[in-house]
Amino acid sequence: MGATDGAKRLTREAAPTILKLPVLPISYGDAEHFLSALEGRVVPASWRGGLAITYHAGGTDAAKAHIVVKSDWSLKTLYDVVAVMKGSEHPDQWVLRGNHHDGWVFGASDPLSGHVAMMAEAKAIGQLVKSGWRPKRTLVYLSWDGEEPMLLGSTEWAETHAAELKKKALVYINTDGNARGFLRVEGSHSLESYVAKVATDVVDPQTGVSVDARRRAHAMTASGSAGANERAKEVGKIAADPSKDYPLDALGSGSDYSSFLQHLGIASLNVGYGGEGSGGGVYHSAYDTWEHHSKFVDPGFAYAGALAKTTGRLVLRMSEADLPVQRYGDFANTVATYLDEVKKLADKKREEQTAQARMFAANAFKLSDDPTLSSGLPTPLKAVPYFNFAPIENAVVRLKASAKAYDAALAAKGAALPAATKGKLVELAGRTEQALLMEPGLPGGRGWYKNMIYAPGRLTGYGAKTLPGVREAIEDERWTDVDTYAAMIGKALTAYADRLDEGVALINGPSASAKAPGAR
Amino acid sequence: MGATDGAKRLTREAAPTILKLPVLPISYGDAEHFLSALEGRVVPASWRGGLAITYHAGGTDAAKAHIVVKSDWSLKTLYDVVAVMKGSEHPDQWVLRGNHHDGWVFGASDPLSGHVAMMAEAKAIGQLVKSGWRPKRTLVYLSWDGEEPMLLGSTEWAETHAAELKKKALVYINTDGNARGFLRVEGSHSLESYVAKVATDVVDPQTGVSVDARRRAHAMTASGSAGANERAKEVGKIAADPSKDYPLDALGSGSDYSSFLQHLGIASLNVGYGGEGSGGGVYHSAYDTWEHHSKFVDPGFAYAGALAKTTGRLVLRMSEADLPVQRYGDFANTVATYLDEVKKLADKKREEQTAQARMFAANAFKLSDDPTLSSGLPTPLKAVPYFNFAPIENAVVRLKASAKAYDAALAAKGAALPAATKGKLVELAGRTEQALLMEPGLPGGRGWYKNMIYAPGRLTGYGAKTLPGVREAIEDERWTDVDTYAAMIGKALTAYADRLDEGVALINGPSASAKAPGAR
Repeated sequence: MGATDGAKRLTREAAPTILKLPVLPISYGDAEHFLSALEGRVVPASWRGGLAITYHAGGTDAAKAHIVVKSDWSLKTLYDVVAVMKGSEHPDQWVLRGNHHDGWVFGASDPLSGHVAMMAEAKAIGQLVKSGWRPKRTLVYLSWDGEEPMLLGSTEWAETHAAELKKKALVYINTDGNARGFLRVEGSHSLESYVAKVATDVVDPQTGVSVDARRRAHAMTASGSAGANERAKEVGKIAADPSKDYPLDALGSGSDYSSFLQHLGIASLNVGYGGEGSGGGVYHSAYDTWEHHSKFVDPGFAYAGALAKTTGRLVLRMSEADLPVQRYGDFANTVATYLDEVKKLADKKREEQTAQARMFAANAFKLSDDPTLSSGLPTPLKAVPYFNFAPIENAVVRLKASAKAYDAALAAKGAALPAATKGKLVELAGRTEQALLMEPGLPGGRGWYKNMIYAPGRLTGYGAKTLPGVREAIEDERWTDVDTYAAMIGKALTAYADRLDEGVALINGPSASAKAPGAR
Repeated sequence: MGATDGAKRLTREAAPTILKLPVLPISYGDAEHFLSALEGRVVPASWRGGLAITYHAGGTDAAKAHIVVKSDWSLKTLYDVVAVMKGSEHPDQWVLRGNHHDGWVFGASDPLSGHVAMMAEAKAIGQLVKSGWRPKRTLVYLSWDGEEPMLLGSTEWAETHAAELKKKALVYINTDGNARGFLRVEGSHSLESYVAKVATDVVDPQTGVSVDARRRAHAMTASGSAGANERAKEVGKIAADPSKDYPLDALGSGSDYSSFLQHLGIASLNVGYGGEGSGGGVYHSAYDTWEHHSKFVDPGFAYAGALAKTTGRLVLRMSEADLPVQRYGDFANTVATYLDEVKKLADKKREEQTAQARMFAANAFKLSDDPTLSSGLPTPLKAVPYFNFAPIENAVVRLKASAKAYDAALAAKGAALPAATKGKLVELAGRTEQALLMEPGLPGGRGWYKNMIYAPGRLTGYGAKTLPGVREAIEDERWTDVDTYAAMIGKALTAYADRLDEGVALINGPSASAKAPGAR
């Protein structure tokens, strides 16, 4: 339900998402006064920061601070700007394209560097229309308000138009701050081939090779660096193999795609360039200015241009495609790796608990503790049982078979299908991602997040947690939730496979079998 | 050849170990002026320090510094204090015990905190002697001068008395700075069981358990910490298994054991407590004072007492033992792990070179380079051939068999042997470690280091490199040296196994076979 003019509103007291602790970033100079006044136990190593003090928690009266909190609780009106260009052939198939327009201070990098790219696309499409061209599908350009405080503009709009969006939206393509460097796209794994084709066609302004070639070069060298994690090494290997589509990272949260992907189940992408320069020092501060952005972040706005060319192509190819752009094998294979990850996570947790229990039994924590720097004994971990991953395992086998059948059938027979069937297939592909939604959504007051594959972490914010119902249940020691959500994920993946089988039936026509080979 | 009064001396110009670049530690405040004046290429990530500047190398005239170097090249006399207590039964079997007495400034922690423990031992032994007791073997207490500038006092003494030491010395037991915390012993792997027995008998002043139990507790918890490396994990596993002797780390350099172990092949130990408190901030500085040491490093000198009890027991048990204290299975098994390490190192280097070559072929370094922060292309790695590790592999099989036979024979029949045979066995065990020396020593001007198993790294200083001739040849891309030194290591280990077989023959008597089962 969107927070429109006459909407029913919770009182502030009844809103569980408004925390009771005031939170405000402060400078390290101010923080040092507070932190160095604490005199209780030394904190565990992972709590320590970079200040030249011994970090303590708790303390005496000397460490008391008087905090005055003045909040402006008045309601403000947000202005989303929505521009619709109706499609000539499939007006009820929508391509959504958005970037927010609000910023914390001047907002030159965040959000305007992405917003100018979106405006450039809109202008180019306007030129095309003036020359007589019309898009086949409906283009919806969305300039969001209130992103910084809580993704407000996009969330309220998505909730208000939820039913229509679930019927019509094929994809949501988001951008936000942009910088010079390497193309980075996060999003739904069914869209990897589609993104890879666009990335091969856009030229990198700095090197003159395609932005796909450049992101592959970056992934290769990054995978050889000292700090490379398992995922970076895996991506480096894929990047070195030109026969493979460059993978997308899963979406967490932190920009306006969240409602579309995680609440409505609309396949989404978040697109941007970056990774060069010395990092995000001005992010969300008063130093994020025109001067800084134009001098250091994207001199000559070369990467604003590259972004417009990338997202513009994504919009137009989705709008003009005769057949689905999705490749479901990429999705199925990636979900299989997520399943491996959560199984390994459970094994690792189990080993950690066993090792910790052995150390408690040997009194090792007490005996190895330095009394002058003690942070006390660790919290005992809960013993980790074995879980029933079978519902996901079986669903992944089914999903792989259905995806393979779909991709093969589309490649073999798609081009020759009647136009009406092609249109139906595109519409079905748009809806297929919604199979990943399951009621009652994620546990712990996060039922708004209904996607069983992609979510932001409960405590990670930007960072994604894939198969979140299971992964976070393992992390948080909620053992019964592991089995519960494994069953729900299995159902979601099976429903997804069902839609792929529907697609195969459409491709093969009414006379052929409605089931994919290997499906049951 | 020791630098005694009339010794022949190299001129300064002819001494290859006196470097031509002046080197002096300076404060970060001074260093920042120099570093921030550099304006050439941005340095690679691994060269960057913690200052809040972008690190460059090279630059313009603005970065020129005028350095005035004034050196005092006059010769100084060093004073080693040597106290000998002649043994009553085996006067020609020597137990060496040393600690240096010179310090950079006040030297409260380094070296005096170790030196007071040694003085306490000497005093206690003096009391025993006054009461009528005499050690069975000769005790040599050594208070070294000139350790800080270059291990000078111990090196010149060891070189001067090399021939006699190689005949008589059974072990060299070193201490240096000491602090509160956990027992840490580095040294010859044949001595692990001997050290473990002593550690089980000394009580930790802080916790009241044995210092062995406490170091095990520490190893267990450290192996579970986020930064634990492979070795820490392995030691943590051993620590959790009370049936296994706690392992010794290999000796590198940085204190007075170096000449004994690496030049003369005398089994050595370096013993100390530490690991509590906030680290070595005062090390080698004017802040290493009585006040600092007695207040923060070892309040009440509890760990000075623990050290004296530990090293005193080590000295007296070696002096009074009827039979060899060595357990050669520990040595053989550990050398086998070193062999695994260098084989893995070669494989890893090969993979790195292959990966780098692939990246060069794909132009990945150039394409992923940020021109504003470029440190240029990496140096191409040399292709890594396959090596002949067989000489070490065969020697390790032989060594394991001989060690097993020796340990078993000693345990089964040692106690019943005639006193003269027991004495011969102890003497043989003292000489056995010298089998690890091979001419011409390590390559690259480091022929003084003759031990084929233990050396300080060419570039690591304190840090040990085991199987150094092979390990460093792989690291430095000197491929022909790998095979050359693999052969030399194989010979050294075989010579070592020969001495173990000699021991087995001594134990079994003239009638029994002189060869260990499995030996060839």
